[in-house]
Amino acid sequence: MVNDDSRTPPRRRTGLWFLGARGSVATTATLGALALARGHAPTTGLVSELPDVARAGLVGVDELVVGGHDVAGSIVERAHELAASGVVPAATVAALADDLATVDARVRPGASGTADRATADRLQADIEAFRAEHDLERVVVVDVSSTEPPAPDAHALTLTELERRLDDGTAPLPASSLYAYAAFRAGSPVVCFTPSTGPRIPALEELAKTLHLPWAGRDGKTGETLLKATLAPMFATRALAVRSWSAFNILGGGDGRTLADPAAAASKTATKAMTVEAVLGYPVEGPVRIDHVADLGDWKTAWDHVTFDGFLGTRMRMQVTWEGCDSALAAPLVLDLARLVARAHEVGVTGPVGELGFFFKDPVGSAEHALAAQWQTLTRWCAGLGDAARADGHAGVAPHGAA
Amino acid sequence: MVNDDSRTPPRRRTGLWFLGARGSVATTATLGALALARGHAPTTGLVSELPDVARAGLVGVDELVVGGHDVAGSIVERAHELAASGVVPAATVAALADDLATVDARVRPGASGTADRATADRLQADIEAFRAEHDLERVVVVDVSSTEPPAPDAHALTLTELERRLDDGTAPLPASSLYAYAAFRAGSPVVCFTPSTGPRIPALEELAKTLHLPWAGRDGKTGETLLKATLAPMFATRALAVRSWSAFNILGGGDGRTLADPAAAASKTATKAMTVEAVLGYPVEGPVRIDHVADLGDWKTAWDHVTFDGFLGTRMRMQVTWEGCDSALAAPLVLDLARLVARAHEVGVTGPVGELGFFFKDPVGSAEHALAAQWQTLTRWCAGLGDAARADGHAGVAPHGAA
Amino acid sequence: MVNDDSRTPPRRRTGLWFLGARGSVATTATLGALALARGHAPTTGLVSELPDVARAGLVGVDELVVGGHDVAGSIVERAHELAASGVVPAATVAALADDLATVDARVRPGASGTADRATADRLQADIEAFRAEHDLERVVVVDVSSTEPPAPDAHALTLTELERRLDDGTAPLPASSLYAYAAFRAGSPVVCFTPSTGPRIPALEELAKTLHLPWAGRDGKTGETLLKATLAPMFATRALAVRSWSAFNILGGGDGRTLADPAAAASKTATKAMTVEAVLGYPVEGPVRIDHVADLGDWKTAWDHVTFDGFLGTRMRMQVTWEGCDSALAAPLVLDLARLVARAHEVGVTGPVGELGFFFKDPVGSAEHALAAQWQTLTRWCAGLGDAARADGHAGVAPHGAA
Amino acid sequence: MVNDDSRTPPRRRTGLWFLGARGSVATTATLGALALARGHAPTTGLVSELPDVARAGLVGVDELVVGGHDVAGSIVERAHELAASGVVPAATVAALADDLATVDARVRPGASGTADRATADRLQADIEAFRAEHDLERVVVVDVSSTEPPAPDAHALTLTELERRLDDGTAPLPASSLYAYAAFRAGSPVVCFTPSTGPRIPALEELAKTLHLPWAGRDGKTGETLLKATLAPMFATRALAVRSWSAFNILGGGDGRTLADPAAAASKTATKAMTVEAVLGYPVEGPVRIDHVADLGDWKTAWDHVTFDGFLGTRMRMQVTWEGCDSALAAPLVLDLARLVARAHEVGVTGPVGELGFFFKDPVGSAEHALAAQWQTLTRWCAGLGDAARADGHAGVAPHGAA
Ligand SMILES: NC(=O)c1ccc[n+]([C@@H]2O[C@H](COP(=O)([O-])OP(=O)(O)OC[C@H]3O[C@@H](n4cnc5c(N)ncnc54)[C@H](O)[C@@H]3O)[C@@H](O)[C@H]2O)c1
Ligand SMILES: NC(=O)c1ccc[n+]([C@@H]2O[C@H](COP(=O)([O-])OP(=O)(O)OC[C@H]3O[C@@H](n4cnc5c(N)ncnc54)[C@H](O)[C@@H]3O)[C@@H](O)[C@H]2O)c1
Ligand SMILES: NC(=O)c1ccc[n+]([C@@H]2O[C@H](COP(=O)([O-])OP(=O)(O)OC[C@H]3O[C@@H](n4cnc5c(N)ncnc54)[C@H](O)[C@@H]3O)[C@@H](O)[C@H]2O)c1
Ligand SMILES: NC(=O)c1ccc[n+]([C@@H]2O[C@H](COP(=O)([O-])OP(=O)(O)OC[C@H]3O[C@@H](n4cnc5c(N)ncnc54)[C@H](O)[C@@H]3O)[C@@H](O)[C@H]2O)c1
Ligand code: NA
Ligand code: NA
Repeated sequence: MVNDDSRTPPRRRTGLWFLGARGSVATTATLGALALARGHAPTTGLVSELPDVARAGLVGVDELVVGGHDVAGSIVERAHELAASGVVPAATVAALADDLATVDARVRPGASGTADRATADRLQADIEAFRAEHDLERVVVVDVSSTEPPAPDAHALTLTELERRLDDGTAPLPASSLYAYAAFRAGSPVVCFTPSTGPRIPALEELAKTLHLPWAGRDGKTGETLLKATLAPMFATRALAVRSWSAFNILGGGDGRTLADPAAAASKTATKAMTVEAVLGYPVEGPVRIDHVADLGDWKTAWDHVTFDGFLGTRMRMQVTWEGCDSALAAPLVLDLARLVARAHEVGVTGPVGELGFFFKDPVGSAEHALAAQWQTLTRWCAGLGDAARADGHAGVAPHGAA
Repeated sequence: MVNDDSRTPPRRRTGLWFLGARGSVATTATLGALALARGHAPTTGLVSELPDVARAGLVGVDELVVGGHDVAGSIVERAHELAASGVVPAATVAALADDLATVDARVRPGASGTADRATADRLQADIEAFRAEHDLERVVVVDVSSTEPPAPDAHALTLTELERRLDDGTAPLPASSLYAYAAFRAGSPVVCFTPSTGPRIPALEELAKTLHLPWAGRDGKTGETLLKATLAPMFATRALAVRSWSAFNILGGGDGRTLADPAAAASKTATKAMTVEAVLGYPVEGPVRIDHVADLGDWKTAWDHVTFDGFLGTRMRMQVTWEGCDSALAAPLVLDLARLVARAHEVGVTGPVGELGFFFKDPVGSAEHALAAQWQTLTRWCAGLGDAARADGHAGVAPHGAA
Repeated sequence: MVNDDSRTPPRRRTGLWFLGARGSVATTATLGALALARGHAPTTGLVSELPDVARAGLVGVDELVVGGHDVAGSIVERAHELAASGVVPAATVAALADDLATVDARVRPGASGTADRATADRLQADIEAFRAEHDLERVVVVDVSSTEPPAPDAHALTLTELERRLDDGTAPLPASSLYAYAAFRAGSPVVCFTPSTGPRIPALEELAKTLHLPWAGRDGKTGETLLKATLAPMFATRALAVRSWSAFNILGGGDGRTLADPAAAASKTATKAMTVEAVLGYPVEGPVRIDHVADLGDWKTAWDHVTFDGFLGTRMRMQVTWEGCDSALAAPLVLDLARLVARAHEVGVTGPVGELGFFFKDPVGSAEHALAAQWQTLTRWCAGLGDAARADGHAGVAPHGAA
Repeated sequence: MVNDDSRTPPRRRTGLWFLGARGSVATTATLGALALARGHAPTTGLVSELPDVARAGLVGVDELVVGGHDVAGSIVERAHELAASGVVPAATVAALADDLATVDARVRPGASGTADRATADRLQADIEAFRAEHDLERVVVVDVSSTEPPAPDAHALTLTELERRLDDGTAPLPASSLYAYAAFRAGSPVVCFTPSTGPRIPALEELAKTLHLPWAGRDGKTGETLLKATLAPMFATRALAVRSWSAFNILGGGDGRTLADPAAAASKTATKAMTVEAVLGYPVEGPVRIDHVADLGDWKTAWDHVTFDGFLGTRMRMQVTWEGCDSALAAPLVLDLARLVARAHEVGVTGPVGELGFFFKDPVGSAEHALAAQWQTLTRWCAGLGDAARADGHAGVAPHGAA
C-alpha cells in the first residue's frame, strides 16, 4: 500500500497539520500513519485504501509528514494513555515512541484567546515554516481540536469587515475560524472534522474561493450518526413511517469531558440531529443526548431507539447499541480526508467539496445524508480524479510536481 | 392513489393468486388491498407507491382481484386472529369482513401430496378459471405458503424428465414447484416469497423461458435480513473488518410453528445466512437461528450481535434488536411484487427478474445483496418501465388491453 | 379473591381518595378495582393478592370506594385514551363506562395555587364529606397527581409556623403538602406515590405523629428503579465493583409531558438516582435522564448501561432495556398500598411505614433499597399484621369496626 | 486479607486440586490465588472476602496450595492466551510465570477412557500424594474440566454394583464421576463446578455419606443464570406473569468449543433452563441456546428476552444483554467454594451442602433458586460456622489442627 522509502524516492511529500495535534484523534492518526508507513499495521478502517477510492491517485500514507498546533498535552503521553485504555496496541506505541516524540516536537502553540492580526499571522507563519522546512508539496490543515460552542456572531461578517476587525483586535471569531483564516492565507486546504464553526462562515468561504482552495467538513461521522445515515434510508425506501428516533450517547475521554459542557455539546447535538430528517424528509421527534461517563474512556456507547409504523398502521420498534472506539473510528477517516483533500487541491478543486459528505455528519456542499448515496458520489468522484491523473500520463499516482 | 371505481372503469384488472391464501401474509395483504382500494388505509409500507417505483406504470391496487390455493383455514378467522394480536386494526377487519369472505370463497383446495399430472392439471385449471371468471388481463401467482424443507432431488431433473415423471406420478417435486409448474402452464408469472424450492430448479427455469414468463424470488426480505442488507455495506465501505455476526430470531404465529421444524428452518436459515458474506466478500462466523416462542405471535424479535475490527485492530461491537410484525412487513411487499411482476409481464420481460432483488433474501438473477444498491437498480428499472409505458402513448398507466 | 357482594355484606368499606383522580395511574387503578370487584380481571400485578401479603388481613378490593381531587380532565375520557394506546382493554372500559362516570362525579376541584387556610379547610371537608356520604371506615388519600418541582422552603417550617402562615395565606407549601395537611386533619392516612414533597417535611411529619396516622412514600417503584433495586444487590453480593450505571428513560403520556419540564424532572431524577449507591455503599457515576417522546404514550422504555469490574480487574458490561407500561405497573401498586396502609391504620401504626419500602424509589422510614430484602421485611410485617388480626378473633379479614 | 507468609506461619495449609487444572477457569483461579497471596490484586469478585461470608472462619487464600489433573495443555501457555484476550492482566502473568510453572509441574495425567479400578486407584493416589508432599490439612477437589454429555446409565448403579463393575472394568461412569469416586476415597470433599454428572449419582452420594464428606454443586452460576436468579424473583414478588423467557448465549474459548458439541451442550442447557421455572413456580416457554463464536474468546455474551403480563393483561417486555468474561466470573467463585467447603469439612458437615446454592445453577441439596434468598441462607450458615469457630476459642480463623 505504501511506498517503500528505500526503493522509491518520495514524490509528493504532503504535510498534515493538525489543530489539536495532541488530542486522541490526532494522536491515533499520527500513530497509525507511522505504523502504516512502516508496514506495522493493516489498512483496516482506511477508506482511502479501498480500490474504488484509492483509484483517485492519492498520496501515499508514507508521504505524509505530521505537525500541528495545540494548547497543551504531549503526543507520547496521550499515546500511552490510549494504549492503556485499549484504543491502540501498547506494542505499537512502544515501537514508535521516538517517532511520536519527533512529531510532538513539531507542534506549535495554538490560539485560544482573542482573534487579532498578530495571532493570525503567527499561525500562518507556523504552517508556512512547516511546509518550507520539510519541503512539502502542500500542507492540509485538519481541525481535530476540542469542540467549541456555536459562534453566531461570526456568521454576519463580510470578508472586508473580518479583515478590519482583525486589525482592530475585535474580530468575533472563535479559534477554529481564526485557524481556518490563517490556513487559507498560508495556501492550505482545510478539513473541518469537528462541529466547530471553522471555515463555515461567509467571510471565510469567500476567502477560500478567492484563493482557489478546497475545504471539507463538517464533524466526522463515526458512530451513531453513521448508523443513522445507514439505517434511515432503509425506512425511506421501504416506505416505513418513522415516528420517533431517540439517541443517547455516553463516553469518557477528552471529547467526553469537553462535551460534558452543555455549550460545547450544543454544537455536536445540532450536527447529530440533522441526519434522520434530512434522509426521511419529514420531522421526527426524539432526544439526542451526549453524556460524560469517565469510566468509558474513548469507548462511546450509543443507544438508539426507533419507533415506526408499517402497513395498516402497525407499530414496530428497533434498537441499536453501538460500542465503538471513537478515536479508532475517527483516525483513519482523518488520514483519508487529508489524502483526498490533498488530491482535490492538486487537481484544482475550489470551495467546499460536497463529494466528501460520506465522511461528515453535516456535509458542507451537499444535501445528501444517506450513506450509500454518499458512497456512490464519492467513488464516482474518485474515478474522475483517477482519470484526471491518468490523463496526466501516470497511472494513479502523480510524480513529484506533476499537478 | 387508487382509482375510484365509480368514476373510472377498471383498465387492467389483474389477478393475485396466493399459494397459502389463508395464511397470515396472504390475509394481511388481502385485507390491506381491500382497505386501500376503499381509501381506508394509508400507503405506509407500500414501496410501489413511492414515486420512484410508481413511475413504472403499475396496475392500481384497486385493480387487483384476489384468489388462491390453500389446504386449510379461513381468511376471515385468520383476519380476526391477526386483529386480536395487534397485527391489523380490528375495525378494518370488521368493516371488510364480507369482502374477506368473498375472497375466501375463491380459494381452491391446494396440493400437498404426490406430484402427478392430474394434480398439476387441476391447479392450472383453477388459475385459468379464475382468470376467465373475473375477466383478468393476467394472474400473478404469489407463493406465501408454509416453508418447505429443501428438496435436493428436484434440482437434477430436466424439463423432459419432469414431464415424463409427472405422467408416471413419480416426480420428485415439492408442492411449491408443482404449483410453479402449473402457474407457468397457465401463462402466469410467479413470485416466490418463501425460501421453498418453487420455480428455482433448472426444469422450471427452462419452462418459464420457453413460455416467455417472468418470475421473481426468493424469500421476502422483511426483518433481520433487511437489516443485514442495510448494515453490512456500512462496514464494507468504511473498511471495517467484520469478525462475527450472530443472528437470533424468535417468533410465534403460523410461520413460527412451521419453522420450529428443523427441516423447514433449514431452508430459511440458508437464505438468511447469505447476505453478510455476499456483501462483504469474505466469510464471517456466527450462528443464524430461528426459535418458536408462541407467546410472540406474529411479532418476530431478532437480536443481531456483530463484532468488528477498526483501525490498528481495535475491537468493537454492535447490537441490534428488531421488533417487527412479520405479516405487516411482508404484506405490502407482496402487493408491490404482484404489481411489479404484472408490469414486467405486460412489457414482455422473461425469466428471473434480478431487478427485484431489493425485496428478497436470496435474489434470483442477481448477485447484489446491498439494499441501497438494490434500490438503485430497482428504481432505474422502474424508470425504464415508465418510459416504455410513455412510449406506448399513455402516461404511466396502460389502458385496458394495451400491452 | 374479592367478596361476592350478593353473598357477604361489605365489612370494611374503605375510601380510596386520589389526588390526581383523572390521571393515567388513578384511572387505571379505578378501572382495575371496578373490574376486579366484578371478577372481570385476573389479579396479575396485585402484590396484595400474593399469599404472603394477603395474610395481613387486607380489605377486599370490592370494599374500596373511589373518589378524589383533580384540577382537570375526565376519568371516562382518560380511560378511552388508555384503551386506545393499549394500556387497558377497550372492552373493559366499555363495560365499566357507567361506573367510571360515577367515580368521576365524586371528583372535587383540587388545589394548585396559594396555600391558605380556606383551601386547606375545603380540601379537608371534601374528604370528610366523602367518608360520611359513603359510610366508610376510613379514607386513604393517595397522591398520584403530577410531579411537582422540589420545594426547599417547606422543609424549614415548624408545625406552629405552618399553621400561622396558613392563616396568613403565605405558607410556602406546594400543593402536595397542602393536600397532605388536609388529609391528616381529616384523619386519613396518606400514600405519597409521587416524588413530590407531600407529607415529607418536618411540620407534617409532626402532625401525622400527633394525630396517630400512618403514611407511606415516596415515588412508586415501577420500572428502571425496580430493576436497579433488583440488580444492584447481585453486584453487591457477588463482590463485583460497579464502575458506572447510566440510565435513560423515554416516555410520552401525561407523566412524560410533566417531566419534560426540567424543574419537575429534578424531583424524579433525584429519587431515581439514589437506589444504586444506597445498595452498593459507594458512589457510582452515570447520568439519569428522562426524556419526553410523545409517540410512546404511557409506554416507558428505559435503557440502563452498567460497567463493572470482576476478578483481577477484568472489565464487563450489562445492558437492560425495559419496555413497560407505566400506568399498568403503577395502578395495582396503588391498590396494594391503599389496602396495606388501611390495614396499618386499622391496627394503630403511626408515622412513616418503612416496611412498605418495597413499593417506593425513596422509601421513607427505611434505609433499605434492595428489593428482595424489602420483600422480606414486607412479608414479615404482613405476617405480624395477620397474627394481630387472628388475635382479634377473625381469620385474616377484620369484621366491620373490629380495629 | 491474606496472611503475610514472612510473619505468621501458615496454619491451615489446604490443597486445591483442580480437575481440568490447565483450563481457563482453573488457570485464572490459580493466577488469582497467587496474585492475592502476594497482595498483587484486589479482592474484587471474591464473595468469601465479603464480611458476611468471611466471618465463617475461612482458610486464607495464601494458605491454598494448587495442583490437579488434566489431559492436555499448559497452565503458563493458557495464562498467556488469557492475557492476550484481556481476561487477566499481562503484567500479572509475567510477574507470576514461575509460580504458574511450579503449579503446572504438580498437574498429573487425568482420566478420560474406561472407568476401572486401576484408574480410580491411580487418581486417588495422586491426591493422597499431593496432600502428603505438601503437608496439607485437607485437599478440596474442584471439577472445572470440560463439560461432559449427560450419563443416564450411571444413575441406576448402587454403590455395591459400582464397586463390582470397577473391578470388572465395565463401570458406566463418566470421567467426572470416576474422579469424584477417587476423591471421596482419598478423603477429599468435592466441588462440582460443571454440569457434568460427577458425584451426583446415588452410588456416590452414598459413598460421601459413608465417609462423612461434604460436597457441593452443580454448575457454577456466573452469567445468564445469575441474571435469571436475580430477575425472576422480581417478577414473582411483583405478581407479574412471565409469558416467555428466551435465552441466547454466544461464546468462544475452550468452553465454547466444548459446548459447540450438542451432546455436551445438553448438560448445560438443562441446568440453565431450570432457574426461571423453579423461582416462578409455573412453566415458561422459550429457548435456551449456547452457540460457539470463536472470535469472542472467553467473553460470553448473553441476550435474554422476556415477555410478561401486568395489570389487566397489559403485555410488556424486558431485554438484557450481559457481556461477561466467563473465566473472570468463575475463578473467584472457585476459590470461594474451595474455602467454604474446606471449612464445612473442618466442622464436620456431611453430604451435599445446600447452603452453597448461591454459587450454582443446579443447587444440590436445595430447592431455592432465588439469588437473594440463597444469599441469606449462605450468610446465615456462615454466621453459624463463625460462631462454631469462636466456640472453639479462636476468632474467625482456626489454628492449625483446631477442627
Ligand atoms: N472521535 C470521533 O469519533 C470524532 C468524531 C467527530 C468529531 N470529533 C471531534 O474531533 C475533535 C477531537 O476529538 P478528540 O477525542 O481527539 O478530543 P481530545 O479532547 O482528546 O483532543 C482535543 C485536543 O484539542 C486541543 N485543543 C483544545 N483547544 C485548542 C485550541 N484552541 N487550539 C489547538 N488545540 C486545542 C486539546 O488540547 C486536545 O489536545 C473533537 O472536537 C471531536 O468532537 C471526533
Ligand atoms: N412474514 C414475513 O415476514 C415473511 C418473510 C419472508 C418469507 N415469508 C414466508 O411466507 C410464508 C407465509 O408466512 P405466513 O406467516 O403467512 O405463514 P402461515 O403459516 O400463517 O401461512 C401459511 C399458509 O400456507 C398454507 N399452506 C401450507 N401448505 C400449503 C400447501 N401445500 N398449499 C397451499 N397452502 C399451503 C397454510 O395452510 C397457511 O394458510 C412462509 O413460507 C414464510 O416463511 C414470510
Ligand atoms: N406510572 C408510574 O409508573 C409512576 C411511578 C411512580 C410515580 N408516578 C407518579 O404518579 C403521578 C401520576 O402519574 P400519571 O402517569 O397518572 O400522570 P398524569 O399526568 O396522567 O396524571 C396526573 C393527574 O394529576 C392531575 N393534577 C395535576 N395537578 C394537580 C393538582 N394540583 N391537584 C390535583 N390533581 C392535579 C392532573 O390533572 C392529572 O389528571 C406522577 O407524579 C408520576 O410521577 C408514576
Ligand atoms: N466459566 C464459567 O463461567 C463457568 C460457569 C459454570 C461452569 N463452568 C464449567 O467449568 C468448566 C471449565 O470451563 P473452562 O472455560 O475452564 O473450560 P476449558 O475448556 O478452558 O478447560 C477445561 C479443561 O478441562 C480439561 N479436561 C478435559 N477433559 C478432561 C478430563 N477427562 N480430565 C481432566 N481434565 C480434562 C481440558 O484439557 C481443559 O484444560 C466447564 O465444564 C464449564 O462448563 C464454567
Ligand atoms: Na442471487
Ligand atoms: Na436443587
